[in-house]
Amino acid sequence: MPGLRFKKITIIGVGLIGASLAMAMKKAAIVEEIVGAGRTEENLQSAMERGIIDSFSTSCVQAVDSSELVVLASPVGTFREIMKDIGNRLHEGAIVTDVGSVKGELVIEMEKLIPEGRFFVGAHPIAGSDRSGLDYADSELFRGNLTIITPTERSNKDAVETVAALWRAVGARVVLMDPQEHDRVLALTSHLPHVVSYALVNTIARTNRDYIKYSGGGFRDTTRIASSSPELWADILLSNKDNVLQMIEVYRDRLNEIEDALRNKDRAGLQKLFEEAKGLRDSIS
Amino acid sequence: MPGLRFKKITIIGVGLIGASLAMAMKKAAIVEEIVGAGRTEENLQSAMERGIIDSFSTSCVQAVDSSELVVLASPVGTFREIMKDIGNRLHEGAIVTDVGSVKGELVIEMEKLIPEGRFFVGAHPIAGSDRSGLDYADSELFRGNLTIITPTERSNKDAVETVAALWRAVGARVVLMDPQEHDRVLALTSHLPHVVSYALVNTIARTNRDYIKYSGGGFRDTTRIASSSPELWADILLSNKDNVLQMIEVYRDRLNEIEDALRNKDRAGLQKLFEEAKGLRDSIS
Repeated sequence: MPGLRFKKITIIGVGLIGASLAMAMKKAAIVEEIVGAGRTEENLQSAMERGIIDSFSTSCVQAVDSSELVVLASPVGTFREIMKDIGNRLHEGAIVTDVGSVKGELVIEMEKLIPEGRFFVGAHPIAGSDRSGLDYADSELFRGNLTIITPTERSNKDAVETVAALWRAVGARVVLMDPQEHDRVLALTSHLPHVVSYALVNTIARTNRDYIKYSGGGFRDTTRIASSSPELWADILLSNKDNVLQMIEVYRDRLNEIEDALRNKDRAGLQKLFEEAKGLRDSIS
Repeated sequence: MPGLRFKKITIIGVGLIGASLAMAMKKAAIVEEIVGAGRTEENLQSAMERGIIDSFSTSCVQAVDSSELVVLASPVGTFREIMKDIGNRLHEGAIVTDVGSVKGELVIEMEKLIPEGRFFVGAHPIAGSDRSGLDYADSELFRGNLTIITPTERSNKDAVETVAALWRAVGARVVLMDPQEHDRVLALTSHLPHVVSYALVNTIARTNRDYIKYSGGGFRDTTRIASSSPELWADILLSNKDNVLQMIEVYRDRLNEIEDALRNKDRAGLQKLFEEAKGLRDSIS
């Protein structure tokens, strides 16, 4: 395989992930020209002034013109409309990929929407931050972290390999996974934790807000992700609603079993439940 | 006030907090001699070899002999028995303090158990770790962190001031609080987060353990405290049972309201709940 090198790519949505990917690809010297697209001209202007992108357009249709690769890095709820707009403007052989937190049905739909001779490959870098936006972009954001790529039976093998090579070039560890399984995994490892963390802060908000000033490192860690973007997370959870609702049910049962043990002063039972959790959690320390 | 300096103190329970306090007091040069006491001779021997304590005994009664200050740093469930054992062996004017995560009734009982002319002052450093034990002890553990001191109407003012001065000497910010309020605050800011975090890891344990390998930084932070000692945390939660059960109820309602908004595809409602959480959480970033 020749060295990976794109002449021109387009990143739609130049926020934390989109801008970090642009910076990382430039650092890895695998791209000549990056076009940015998005809703807000001011943000795109700022990204260009910092050298993160080389040019920009607030029109996705214009921005994808003659690009070999288009990266969707806007909220997942916008992907369908964007694909409908840009589909027949894509250069023959162009690859469209994304960085969205939800796959499943969305990948199937994107594959249906993309015209013949152009290829969609879903991807999801498991990296991010409670911070959002250009200001926190970091060319090293993906290094050492996992990127899940979600090919289907319809995927073009070369396109999948190109997207995998791109992520490896920016330092990510790449795993291939079925899009539906991806959504079950993420419901458990990312979407449920956000629900839990938002609910925990709201427990203080509805009892005594002042008490938060007595919180220590444990509370701060447990609720760090409650600082995440409300708009983005409403979008992600709604896009993976059924899996998340199912995991909330399993979670509520786990909460209830701890509550029951506590109510019954069942010290041995409590300790056993905590040991179960500690055993699994220690495996990723 | 003359400079704070103890000739001899005793630390009962030479684990993470007890050993860290011993190291911090030595570093601050406010103590001449530290006696360690505990269940396990091997642990005490190790603490002495590292210079954390100067001598030790597996008998609390022997260890408190002629000490000006006794620090209870063993699990909170052991305090009553220890006080009954050491009470009448305490040197006149001696202060007994603790580092326990639960106050409330316990403080009232300790005040009743301690003989006339000896003084109990409850204290709780809001510092700690998912790690426990001597190996993780750190003389800087308390610096910049809060220590809550819980005097009552019966407290001796000089004793309270001495304990406050001790904590300030090791770098802590000191706050005075009613023991019952302390337990409501901690139920919310520390005990509930532990329940939530243990339950979250157990959700993975009961669905698909393998999925934990796909977890990212968000999950890791949210569940860090699920690596905490099961024995210690069963003890803490049982000691603050009523407050914790009440907070679990408020928390479950917050979880349910997010679940309802998600089930009803109420994007605006979800976003509002997340904004409420983010607003409060950002205030301690």
